[in-house]
Amino acid sequence: MQNQTVREDHMTGETQPLERLTELLGPDMKQVNELILKSMESEVPLIPKLAHYLIAAGGKRIRPLLTLACAKAVNAPMHKAYPLAAAVEFIHTATLLHDDVVDESSQRRGQKAANIVFGNQASVLVGDFLFSKSFQLMVDGGSLEILRILSNAAATIAQGEVMQLTTANDIKTTMESYLNVISGKTAALFAASCEVGPVLAAVSPAQISAAREYGTNIGIAFQIVDDALDYSADQNKLGKTVGDDFREGKMTAPVIFSLQEATQEEKDFWSRTIGQKKQNNHDLETAISIMKKRGALEKTMTLAKSYSNKAKESLNQFPACEIASILDDLAQFTISRGF
Amino acid sequence: MQNQTVREDHMTGETQPLERLTELLGPDMKQVNELILKSMESEVPLIPKLAHYLIAAGGKRIRPLLTLACAKAVNAPMHKAYPLAAAVEFIHTATLLHDDVVDESSQRRGQKAANIVFGNQASVLVGDFLFSKSFQLMVDGGSLEILRILSNAAATIAQGEVMQLTTANDIKTTMESYLNVISGKTAALFAASCEVGPVLAAVSPAQISAAREYGTNIGIAFQIVDDALDYSADQNKLGKTVGDDFREGKMTAPVIFSLQEATQEEKDFWSRTIGQKKQNNHDLETAISIMKKRGALEKTMTLAKSYSNKAKESLNQFPACEIASILDDLAQFTISRGF
Repeated sequence: MQNQTVREDHMTGETQPLERLTELLGPDMKQVNELILKSMESEVPLIPKLAHYLIAAGGKRIRPLLTLACAKAVNAPMHKAYPLAAAVEFIHTATLLHDDVVDESSQRRGQKAANIVFGNQASVLVGDFLFSKSFQLMVDGGSLEILRILSNAAATIAQGEVMQLTTANDIKTTMESYLNVISGKTAALFAASCEVGPVLAAVSPAQISAAREYGTNIGIAFQIVDDALDYSADQNKLGKTVGDDFREGKMTAPVIFSLQEATQEEKDFWSRTIGQKKQNNHDLETAISIMKKRGALEKTMTLAKSYSNKAKESLNQFPACEIASILDDLAQFTISRGF
Repeated sequence: MQNQTVREDHMTGETQPLERLTELLGPDMKQVNELILKSMESEVPLIPKLAHYLIAAGGKRIRPLLTLACAKAVNAPMHKAYPLAAAVEFIHTATLLHDDVVDESSQRRGQKAANIVFGNQASVLVGDFLFSKSFQLMVDGGSLEILRILSNAAATIAQGEVMQLTTANDIKTTMESYLNVISGKTAALFAASCEVGPVLAAVSPAQISAAREYGTNIGIAFQIVDDALDYSADQNKLGKTVGDDFREGKMTAPVIFSLQEATQEEKDFWSRTIGQKKQNNHDLETAISIMKKRGALEKTMTLAKSYSNKAKESLNQFPACEIASILDDLAQFTISRGF
């Protein structure tokens, strides 16, 4: 589900917090990038070729950056955080590869999706390879507690994805179900990315929990905004096709809010286009105009903002430092990007 | 790649060694089965539904049985072996789900393949879920050394599968490449399944290595026989369609041996049917008759036998016990099943 990834790749020009993190953590990130490249190596040339195609295409590496940032903020031993940062990026990349197969995506990060270039077979299998590699990296990290956190996250992601599959085309999907889906498919990995550094540093349970909460809430906010952008972004900036969620019949916040206020005619529209996936040429335009009429995109952004605020609150438990300040800005940026 | 799984499901009537293992390890296997069922649970009903469809369809659970057998043979603490036995079965099941998507299989274990019943999307994602669960189970097992063994195996499996993808339709594929493919896609998990028990028991490196060798070699032998059965089995007993490898253009031992002795006309035949995948109605029959003429199936079985013998030799390092004797019979059975 293309939306699973936040569109960190298209924040260019607005990415001050991420750019500042990247700069501040430059030497650490260099180590992580080298580890990523090294771990993609294989005697089977198709593996690094495909992995490189996707990884080199961009992405701000927000998850490994969060891992490094939360580790550094609490003075964790950074060399132990490197394999974990690489591991979360691999879990993310594996998920993207599988999602694009599942969604029959044609675009990812502004270029043809890997499944289009290399085929579904290679995408599924190289995804499995990267996923396995992520566990090898975690084992190198050397902590069972951290392996537990990340393997729980991986299971939660997959569960969220399956849940999304089963709620697609079901116009009775509640906001609660939607939030469950995105808590799994997106927020679980953000949460784990933020948690592992404080666990490495063995800081207080309250601080570990705060890092996790920050990750969860920024992850949820990111995904909600992503789902809004799917109906409202500038196609040229988006890197994927506007309206993909609509065409796939995904039940995301803008649709759920629209349905809450829908007239009978509008209900029939959603029922046909999302419920039965019977769509005509101008249905996306109609969907967007209904959303505007019902204030659904504003409500979606208000919802995202509430999670962004929760993320900020968690930062009170962090030591006052430059990183904490950037993480605060990042929570703000999450809800101001894209439009 | 349907062939990745040995056809343990169709050994009925000939499965003395496996049946004896199942009987001997009954109470242990019961614990493992309960753990498997418990670990398939999820608040998303499609997950246990799909997992159960495949797991309940049969399979002799040869990999978890090997884990338990090798653990018991060296007096490992059995309760620690249970999550590992469940984990290897989950890795295997996840691989089957993904393979059936990759191969567009229609049958598995004598029933419709899960991708046909539940769709490719669900198969990919539930495969990911089971794979993640396998790592959760391993973490429960509590040993980083064992996590390393199993995550290495998972990466090797995926690499073997990708290698198989890249050698398909390449009639220049050597026997060495073929053996590399099956060492990865099949033997790596057999090896890890056998190794983890002795590691738990902390027996001598020579014994650990012997258990691993037994697994590797019985795994290779199983897969070679499987590849022979794809051209020679009784369709009714096979549980999948005879000739699947041929139709997919897989370069397996029977084809490689046939090519070694091929006339120009036969070379042209393999080049068209496997290399270019241009196949007519009677090509499978022709392929089988060429194999018979060139003694390719006998040579394939002789090759399998050499690995079965290697497996037996490794057992010299095992303590003399009933389990070691059954494992010896199992190596023999591997090459006598199916036809």
